[in-house]
Amino acid sequence: MNIRFYHARILTMETDDAVSMKVLEDGELWVEKNRITYVGKERAQQREDGFWDRELDLHGNLILPGFCNAHTHSAMTFLRSYADDLPLKAWLNEQVFPMEARLSGDDALWLSKLAILEYLTSGVTSAFDMYLFPDLMAQAAVECGFRTVLVSGLNDFVSSVEELKEQYQRFNHYHELVGYRLGFHAEYTTGEERLKGVADLAHKYQAPVYAHISETASEVEECIGRHGLTPPVYLDSLGMFDYGGGGYHCVHMRPEDLDVFEKRNLSVITNPGSNVKLASGIAPVKEMVRRGINLAIGTDGPASNNCLDMFREMFLVTGLAKLRQQDAAAVPAEQVLYMATQGGAKAMGLSDCGSLAPGKLADLTVIDLKQPNMQPVNDIVKNLVYSGSKQNVKLTMVNGRILYEDGMFFVGTEPEEIYRKANEIIGRMRKSSLQ
Amino acid sequence: MNIRFYHARILTMETDDAVSMKVLEDGELWVEKNRITYVGKERAQQREDGFWDRELDLHGNLILPGFCNAHTHSAMTFLRSYADDLPLKAWLNEQVFPMEARLSGDDALWLSKLAILEYLTSGVTSAFDMYLFPDLMAQAAVECGFRTVLVSGLNDFVSSVEELKEQYQRFNHYHELVGYRLGFHAEYTTGEERLKGVADLAHKYQAPVYAHISETASEVEECIGRHGLTPPVYLDSLGMFDYGGGGYHCVHMRPEDLDVFEKRNLSVITNPGSNVKLASGIAPVKEMVRRGINLAIGTDGPASNNCLDMFREMFLVTGLAKLRQQDAAAVPAEQVLYMATQGGAKAMGLSDCGSLAPGKLADLTVIDLKQPNMQPVNDIVKNLVYSGSKQNVKLTMVNGRILYEDGMFFVGTEPEEIYRKANEIIGRMRKSSLQ
Repeated sequence: MNIRFYHARILTMETDDAVSMKVLEDGELWVEKNRITYVGKERAQQREDGFWDRELDLHGNLILPGFCNAHTHSAMTFLRSYADDLPLKAWLNEQVFPMEARLSGDDALWLSKLAILEYLTSGVTSAFDMYLFPDLMAQAAVECGFRTVLVSGLNDFVSSVEELKEQYQRFNHYHELVGYRLGFHAEYTTGEERLKGVADLAHKYQAPVYAHISETASEVEECIGRHGLTPPVYLDSLGMFDYGGGGYHCVHMRPEDLDVFEKRNLSVITNPGSNVKLASGIAPVKEMVRRGINLAIGTDGPASNNCLDMFREMFLVTGLAKLRQQDAAAVPAEQVLYMATQGGAKAMGLSDCGSLAPGKLADLTVIDLKQPNMQPVNDIVKNLVYSGSKQNVKLTMVNGRILYEDGMFFVGTEPEEIYRKANEIIGRMRKSSLQ
Repeated sequence: MNIRFYHARILTMETDDAVSMKVLEDGELWVEKNRITYVGKERAQQREDGFWDRELDLHGNLILPGFCNAHTHSAMTFLRSYADDLPLKAWLNEQVFPMEARLSGDDALWLSKLAILEYLTSGVTSAFDMYLFPDLMAQAAVECGFRTVLVSGLNDFVSSVEELKEQYQRFNHYHELVGYRLGFHAEYTTGEERLKGVADLAHKYQAPVYAHISETASEVEECIGRHGLTPPVYLDSLGMFDYGGGGYHCVHMRPEDLDVFEKRNLSVITNPGSNVKLASGIAPVKEMVRRGINLAIGTDGPASNNCLDMFREMFLVTGLAKLRQQDAAAVPAEQVLYMATQGGAKAMGLSDCGSLAPGKLADLTVIDLKQPNMQPVNDIVKNLVYSGSKQNVKLTMVNGRILYEDGMFFVGTEPEEIYRKANEIIGRMRKSSLQ
């Protein structure tokens, strides 16, 4: 499909300097097949009649790069609102783990699709997804037309280094919508032998590695107890990050941890919604920004957040930073929007995503500015971060295909069918948990 | 208009016990003129043909009492995204005050309407509104069909005790959609003579009084410096709260402050979005709940939040409480939903709002559960508080009139006209600030 957007405001995010972001007024953006071919003020090229499959007059609404949801566990949608308001350990051991043990691959396919629907309503065009059943997760993304980067959640109970190797080789040539990164769940769930195995793979493939890092204070204390080192320092001592990568959460970070992130050029993927809901704490985002560490934003999974909404996460990133710093000027909106787009693409290794320019992949979202929460139009970036909401997402395009428009989904499956399946799955599990 | 909703899930909030909330399945709710006449499982009464002006099949979607936005400054919409990411004092003194000085009553009318549109998109059916120009604020509400409770923002620079008296007498018999409560801006902006004048009025009318209380740490310190007492204790010593009332924000509260709130039966109106954005701190909500203090939720004004969204506020109330307590079980969803409905109505003195029962005013909202963020339906209350969003608001009814349905507004003025006016107003102000 070739699609032309016109009469659009465009925030290209084509900047390394989050502060000098500019909105292009009354611009055009052209998509040919799965790539952007033109962004600008002029109708630069005439095309023959019938060239455009669709020409969309945006009436001054905004085109933005799609959000990169840089940490999630998509298929956990079945546990949304299943186990809230519980202490962290009870939540994990008594609710999450026993239910996960009953999950099948086919379940994961449907539950991932449910998450994908929600991503689309929030302008999210790619997800960095750590969960069981990578094959089914990949299948869900491909069937829906959504972009996913899989990352292994290897730990002492799930998967093996051999499997990781096999997956790494297979998924990197699987489909244009699917990526794969080396990873493991976390230091506290993965013994040293396996961790060394992952580090060996990282060296073999010169590949980055990702994991949950320093999410809770007790995780850090326990790691120090085991190894005399904090999680980032310990993992780095194994050679884990010699080819980069990143950490999810990174709430309880000491200066030496941030040194590792700087030295190894690691990304921090911050997950503020999950961190408040599970009472984990507030990440030192301002200090990370000051050090020049790449920051990205993730929703975490629907069992711990519970929604998959980048607007809420963006507000929380800056809001919590302001609280932590006791400074209403800390981490301004422009930096947050950068994290949600360019920062995310960088963290996920999606070099052709995160901004709008000729040659880039056509992953974008159209924001309806003609809603009361977006008026008056004093500052579009502040509007997005401080008052934006899912309600403003008019259209979401992934890889040149419109998957969501004016409340309708175009993902090859009817939403009602996905909802029915999700309710069936949790119903079946509840029943079996009573037996 | 007589309107019948059927095939509805209904959360009546008819409970004094937030924990035992139950959802009525496949229920009916009848509205005759501006009141609810029936809520239940049966088609209890047959009516003659043509009795119903509309019969809405909700297909299992949810009816909920409309949210009570218990603290806002509606007309400040013109300052949305105008002055963010600034330290509090610079924000107030260099941006907010100079712009407010240029505001006319006609401006306030249009800007209040803009806020009302946004309330409707978030299922808000009433606002407790402190701002300049009460006549125009009341006019905006009445013209739109929205419910407002005005509260004076009297301070040393604005209004007088005489004006308060005049307003109190006038607005309590002004219109069924308009209420009025005695109030003043805050201790730190209002000298003792005026405060005593307000307390005298409270005694004269046996009326509750409302004000910003203990929003920031420095406000508390300064009050102690002036009077040797914290704001709640000082104000109570003047007899201010002998007939009840409440405090907005209440972030920096000491045990003796909470004692005053308990003793005088005052409501706390918490404003978490504003408190994080302005780096004011986290209110001790769990302790307030434990003491049995009535809690309500407000968005605060669009200059400090910047959006007027009760879903975001609800998540923040529980999220911040969990953070503050370092306890993922603190202040569960049910308590938060109670604050946003019943608690708000109680704080605002709207005895006929906040729950759904025969005889109550028909202020309600319909929530679309057939959206990915609401699936599966494990627990509707948790879904609302943890993953609900404006996107789920299908319909908002105030006083028996549908003002918002499927993205369309029915408020007597076209939204585009309101947006145009809001942009015009801020444009004019910016221009005059350059001269």
